[in-house]
Amino acid sequence: MALEKKNENEEYSQLRQDLVTGDWVVIATGRSKRPEDFVVKKEASLESSIEGCPFENPEASGQKEDVLVYKKGDGEWTLRVFPNLYPAIDRGRRPKPLGEGPYFGMTGTGYHELVVSRDHDKHFALMDATHIAEVLDAYQDRYINIMNKKSIRYISIIHNHGRSAGASLFHPHSQIFAIPVISPYVQLEISGAQQYKKSNKKCVYCTMIEHDREEKTRVIFENDDCIVIAPYASRSAFEMWILPKFHSPYFERITNKQKLSIAWALKRALGALYSALENPDYNMYLHTAPCDGNDYPHFHWHFEVLPKTSIWAGFELSTGIEVSTIEPEIATKRLREFV
Amino acid sequence: MALEKKNENEEYSQLRQDLVTGDWVVIATGRSKRPEDFVVKKEASLESSIEGCPFENPEASGQKEDVLVYKKGDGEWTLRVFPNLYPAIDRGRRPKPLGEGPYFGMTGTGYHELVVSRDHDKHFALMDATHIAEVLDAYQDRYINIMNKKSIRYISIIHNHGRSAGASLFHPHSQIFAIPVISPYVQLEISGAQQYKKSNKKCVYCTMIEHDREEKTRVIFENDDCIVIAPYASRSAFEMWILPKFHSPYFERITNKQKLSIAWALKRALGALYSALENPDYNMYLHTAPCDGNDYPHFHWHFEVLPKTSIWAGFELSTGIEVSTIEPEIATKRLREFV
Repeated sequence: MALEKKNENEEYSQLRQDLVTGDWVVIATGRSKRPEDFVVKKEASLESSIEGCPFENPEASGQKEDVLVYKKGDGEWTLRVFPNLYPAIDRGRRPKPLGEGPYFGMTGTGYHELVVSRDHDKHFALMDATHIAEVLDAYQDRYINIMNKKSIRYISIIHNHGRSAGASLFHPHSQIFAIPVISPYVQLEISGAQQYKKSNKKCVYCTMIEHDREEKTRVIFENDDCIVIAPYASRSAFEMWILPKFHSPYFERITNKQKLSIAWALKRALGALYSALENPDYNMYLHTAPCDGNDYPHFHWHFEVLPKTSIWAGFELSTGIEVSTIEPEIATKRLREFV
Repeated sequence: MALEKKNENEEYSQLRQDLVTGDWVVIATGRSKRPEDFVVKKEASLESSIEGCPFENPEASGQKEDVLVYKKGDGEWTLRVFPNLYPAIDRGRRPKPLGEGPYFGMTGTGYHELVVSRDHDKHFALMDATHIAEVLDAYQDRYINIMNKKSIRYISIIHNHGRSAGASLFHPHSQIFAIPVISPYVQLEISGAQQYKKSNKKCVYCTMIEHDREEKTRVIFENDDCIVIAPYASRSAFEMWILPKFHSPYFERITNKQKLSIAWALKRALGALYSALENPDYNMYLHTAPCDGNDYPHFHWHFEVLPKTSIWAGFELSTGIEVSTIEPEIATKRLREFV
């Protein structure tokens, strides 16, 4: 039998469709908890001690060469970018085709870099907005430097916070992956956005922003240039998207003013998440248009934040339909208490 | 700088493309470990005590109604299927459209059932093949019972083993989700299979089986009716696919003889995984053609097993490109020592 409902008006489990990709999520309100129940008891945290942190003194850890350094007036570094010592992608050579029988592959060449901010224990929720803007500066600097390199078709910029989100070091850092293929997920968003534009003569992301601003129930924060929403088809509890309110396919064209707005939005949104869920682990990443030489006028770049509030298990991995147990409207209400 | 290579012949990171979906994976051999390094130290295991296990005596735990029971000659149950007390999908009502502005949704109605085998501490790797065949029997029985119900378009059958794979109870059990939408991942496989058939006049899965049997390096086990391979584009270390060797889109048409062959293959493959990686957590699931009334002659049903050997973090979640750190050919070699 299904979980017994207390009364007729009680809500049922919902299937919600992502307006961009057409993918589905389940919002299983039959399993619903109160917002404060989403605080995750961490089973293992990262070693937080500053001693032995390889990012405090990267040279001593075998790091030979920075690709970008920002410094203060006194010459002390405030942010560094260097190639990952343990890269998933080998640096800079032209990919060679590999294959076997019917299969196709290539050497995994490109760039895999680390963006390291100075303060060992200040992650985004605790940073000043100006320091977050500096991180965004570095994303943009490196993006522009790499985007026209031979064979690079997509640049993925990501930030893992906490051990269950895949971070292996406590010291806050982001990663840049430049690869010779286009991200299938971003391709799916681009195809959806193109399709929507064709049918509705409007950007699908601009449509969401417009509707959500009117509806208000999923708006976590907004300022002049950007908006933070809990997406209608949230794939995990407390998922957040940070979008520029102005239409723009290309993150690398962000202006300094916009960067500061995004930095404030990240600070407020990630700060609210930190307070509401007691410093949950999360993955944050940029979705921007590919840099393969084609134009993507109908895409709309944005950041997505996926808190590690549950495990994607067999059903999610098998179907691509994620199950979340809180409505984004209720998550928004909770986050707004802290924003 | 990239990780320094010891010599010119050393292998580099590879990008491999899934022949069915076109998706990419990274095999990061620059980060490679020895096969025995993939044994995962479990941070938390499920409570294994038989006392308090709700599946030992389901009635006492509030379970009111079985939808299927298999019994021995003495009347003792050997397998039961009942609706999940905490369903992600509400039972059996016709989905009602929901929506808001540009968004579309529907009530999440269908079926969410649990398949429970009798032995509290015998999971697939430790079960007799006949008992695994009984579980497959139950999958088929329930599939056939549900597939023609109103509004059901896809049935997902999954098995989570271990806490990090999302299982919440130690007692082995599988889950059946019958939903009013088609799984996007299966849709992707179907589209890929249709495309491949159109271009190559052959089933893409049959092509893989034929090639991998010749090549041998990714074949973990085979018997009369089925084959276990480590897929060329493995998304996680030690991923395994169990496929019927005969072309068949529809799992529900499996014969008793084939069922026993698959049961043996599951026992041997999951047994090898259990031995090689010291009982790792994993997700296993069935991919079979949708039951929406259409024919899918070019699909080829199969089980996939995804061991929890690493965390899919920002890059994977952002791009849909998974990073694995061992070549499937080396994983196969290791598994074959134990099969």
